[in-house]
Amino acid sequence: MKTSGSDRSVVNVIQYGLGSIGMACARAVAATPGLRLVGAVDVDPEKIGRSLARLLDLPPKGFRGIAVRASLAEAMAGRDAHVAMHTTVSSLGAVVPQIQDCLRAGLAVVSSTEELAFPSRTDPEPARRLDVAAKRARRAAIGTGVNPGFIMDLIPIVASGASLGVRKILVRRVLDAGRRRAPFQKKVGVGMAPADVRRRLAEESMGHVGLLDSALLIAAACGIEIDEVRKSGAPVLATRPMRSALGRVARGKVIGLRQNLSCRRKGREVIRMEMVMVLGAKDPRDESFIDGSPRLHLRWEGGVHGDAATIATLINAIPRALTAPPGLHNILTLPIPRTFSPLLSPQP
Amino acid sequence: MKTSGSDRSVVNVIQYGLGSIGMACARAVAATPGLRLVGAVDVDPEKIGRSLARLLDLPPKGFRGIAVRASLAEAMAGRDAHVAMHTTVSSLGAVVPQIQDCLRAGLAVVSSTEELAFPSRTDPEPARRLDVAAKRARRAAIGTGVNPGFIMDLIPIVASGASLGVRKILVRRVLDAGRRRAPFQKKVGVGMAPADVRRRLAEESMGHVGLLDSALLIAAACGIEIDEVRKSGAPVLATRPMRSALGRVARGKVIGLRQNLSCRRKGREVIRMEMVMVLGAKDPRDESFIDGSPRLHLRWEGGVHGDAATIATLINAIPRALTAPPGLHNILTLPIPRTFSPLLSPQP
Repeated sequence: MKTSGSDRSVVNVIQYGLGSIGMACARAVAATPGLRLVGAVDVDPEKIGRSLARLLDLPPKGFRGIAVRASLAEAMAGRDAHVAMHTTVSSLGAVVPQIQDCLRAGLAVVSSTEELAFPSRTDPEPARRLDVAAKRARRAAIGTGVNPGFIMDLIPIVASGASLGVRKILVRRVLDAGRRRAPFQKKVGVGMAPADVRRRLAEESMGHVGLLDSALLIAAACGIEIDEVRKSGAPVLATRPMRSALGRVARGKVIGLRQNLSCRRKGREVIRMEMVMVLGAKDPRDESFIDGSPRLHLRWEGGVHGDAATIATLINAIPRALTAPPGLHNILTLPIPRTFSPLLSPQP
Repeated sequence: MKTSGSDRSVVNVIQYGLGSIGMACARAVAATPGLRLVGAVDVDPEKIGRSLARLLDLPPKGFRGIAVRASLAEAMAGRDAHVAMHTTVSSLGAVVPQIQDCLRAGLAVVSSTEELAFPSRTDPEPARRLDVAAKRARRAAIGTGVNPGFIMDLIPIVASGASLGVRKILVRRVLDAGRRRAPFQKKVGVGMAPADVRRRLAEESMGHVGLLDSALLIAAACGIEIDEVRKSGAPVLATRPMRSALGRVARGKVIGLRQNLSCRRKGREVIRMEMVMVLGAKDPRDESFIDGSPRLHLRWEGGVHGDAATIATLINAIPRALTAPPGLHNILTLPIPRTFSPLLSPQP
């Protein structure tokens, strides 16, 4: 990596948000030739003022004494920055002022906010405000990630590009929760009582929330009309005592979730999303089935690892954020994704 | 499908070229709601003047007496057309005047010409002329197809979008030639003497020609530098008598080909393309391996059927041809592919 502050071949990145994904993103930025971390923002009083290198547990070389700041203005003071890697919260309403701030400061934005994957669906008004702000600032803002944003929407959409007369698209994600960290296992109810998980699934305070966004992205991309959506979810129970990152799970307790989403038109299923996140799930994989001419069956052996792939999709979106026309973008308006190429120049 | 000639919700298509791919394309246009065939061009004196419906073996309803014409001007006379589906020959030099003609007539162009997949690589000058012509006509021209254009380049590029620090990309296509038509089996040497196939492979008059284009598209997309390319190819021989669409193949005769392409940088392999097209090939499939963080292995079970998928990628490119900025495009400059959506309006 080159070190001159005005070198046009290096993209200067502000890390906005230092939660677990943000920390991993910042480490990936630091490790990627062609990218340079020039500042970081977080709200946590425990982090503000701390050396970024020390916080990330990286050698101080290259960080030039960067400290975590409470505001974007402080983080950018005296720095030449090109892009904000925005990783704060999932809710679109909460992130609009943050992303507007980044755009006003002249930064392109890559955001992990799930509701940005297809914002005009969930809530058109904040998305419209962000689009206006981005166009005014002549910068692009992109919401992306691995799910939503890649494995359960972009991939089946791209696969459908080699088929005609598509009657149905089925997307299946089978994850072995035993290979994930403790917070993930907690998120899918490992060790909980079945009744508690059923209640939380019913009130939608548990489980993967992006299935509908992904399904509606597929529908919008492929011109599939939908007049009915059915959601279902259930806990999966241990048939024998099992070990987990959260301790031993007794027989009859929860070891994960199954969630399904069925989109129909005139009573016929046209899009189906299936998600299995269970301790010891057999044959973990991601699959897309395109029922058209020809029929296609795409399979990611072993599945696409959530955390590492999420970081990768975010970092890899940086070149597209720097070269896309001004405005708020999603996967349908951008060129195809690709791994980060250092052979690009940021916008002047 | 609606039938009014000025209905903006229907895309009017001229089929330019009526070889086997062109005929299949024309049938697919006729069968796809939202598309309407309004004319056809071919050079074959046997086809010129014939009823298009009769030539395609389709009922005459909806064709309004369209006949095959010798020139684009005749095919378009009195018709409101939006896009040319261009399926003539593989060589870029030969198709430039044809595509320029289409652009001058105000048509967006989708072309199956293999050398358009990455034309600035093979021959920058004709590609530059086409780009200028397209911009002058304020229309987009796209070269696409399934290979090159999808399965051995776009797909591994998209897959790499979920990985970082990519060290190597391996793409493998294993085709059972026994499931293909006689012309395909002939193309891969079925029934020939091994020495003849070796000679023809050495002089590059046999085998799939797009491997280098696909590899260089991957390299360009992912910023992978290459300083050495090694090609190899060999016939596969029958170890027992086998049946084929070309008749019985004796032991020791050719039943297909293996081709490899290895792209290196400083002695290390960074991109590898493998292609197997053999009678009775076991486990036919398309695969991409991304050696990065995370490692990814993507597999199309049974493979992607060449002819049907080629037609689909061409038809599915029509909406992007109608909405892309003026100029000559390839898969790297366009939004992600998707199956044809009738919910679009052609450009005024």
